[in-house]
This record gives sequence, structure tokens and C-alpha cells, in this order.
Amino acid sequence: MSLLDVFCHRQKKERENSAAIARERLQILVTHHRSDMKAPDYLPEMKKDILAVIGKYVTVEQENVSIHFESADDISVLEVEVTLPEEDQTKVRMA
Amino acid sequence: MSLLDVFCHRQKKERENSAAIARERLQILVTHHRSDMKAPDYLPEMKKDILAVIGKYVTVEQENVSIHFESADDISVLEVEVTLPEEDQTKVRMA
Repeated sequence: MSLLDVFCHRQKKERENSAAIARERLQILVTHHRSDMKAPDYLPEMKKDILAVIGKYVTVEQENVSIHFESADDISVLEVEVTLPEEDQTKVRMA
Repeated sequence: MSLLDVFCHRQKKERENSAAIARERLQILVTHHRSDMKAPDYLPEMKKDILAVIGKYVTVEQENVSIHFESADDISVLEVEVTLPEEDQTKVRMA
């Protein structure tokens, strides 16, 4: 199962569970595989840099940001999800 | 299945397939769910900003970066994977 398959599957499940699925969303998942479990875990620190990158492309409103952090054994996962406003808030236009 | 489960499962599969699994890795997955399929797809543009964020925390060597982009229907996925050098190249130290 490719990562795109995983996300398409998740989206399909969410679509079944929610009428509000049509809203535009950005989801950022950062996974840190550490070879040494004592290595520093910089994902919580990286969070604000990631939000700054998202903010460069779309208007981010604090109440529409969901942040989740999990750590187990030698793997840490940071998940940032931003639901975008109904109106088009894209800042960057492609050619 | 939580996202952490998905990644732990992937890591287990990779561990079975590779002897080099002990190397430290950072994986960034950006998923853009578009409500309007004609909306601009800024993920390819966002790629260089993400690499700049990673470079703030660890030393990134070009040959150790793998970038993959997929787009289907109303979902686009950008995957950036960085394998870190054997020696500790972490730039940011946590307290």
C-alpha cells in the first residue's frame, strides 16, 4: 500500500463520517526515525517552522490548526493539520 | 490504525528488507486535500521551504535526499525523506 493509498483510504473513511469533508486541508506529517534513542528529539521545536512554511502559502487561523505529537521507541511523529477557510485563501499562485 | 501505527508497520517491513535500517532518517509527508480540483497545487513549490526547515536542524547532503510527489483526484502528496550521516549531525540541542 503506497502512502497515497493510505491517505486516499483515510479520506474515504472521513468522507463517510463527515459532511464537511469538502473543505480544503493541509496535513503535514514529520516522522523522525532515530538510530539512537538518546538522540535529541527536535520535532516539537520544528513545529513552529513548519507552521511558518504553511503560512507562506495559505492564511492560517489559529483555531483551524490541529497539532498532534506521538513518540514510541525509536520513532517520533508530529502531525499538523490545517483546515483552510471556505473562501480561497491561497497566497501563492502557480503559473 | 493510527498514523503512528502506519509508520511503525512501514518501519517493521523496511527492517525486514534492509540491513541499513539503523540509520537516522527524517520523513516529511505533506498532504493537500483540495476542495476544488482547479485550485493551485503549491506542494512542488513548498518543497524547497521544507528542505530549508530540515536543514536548520540537521546537516542535509543532497545525495541523501529523496523526493517523491504524487497527485490523484483532489489529493496531492509530497514526500521528502532525508537519511542522516552516520556521525551525529544534529544542529539543535534540546535542554
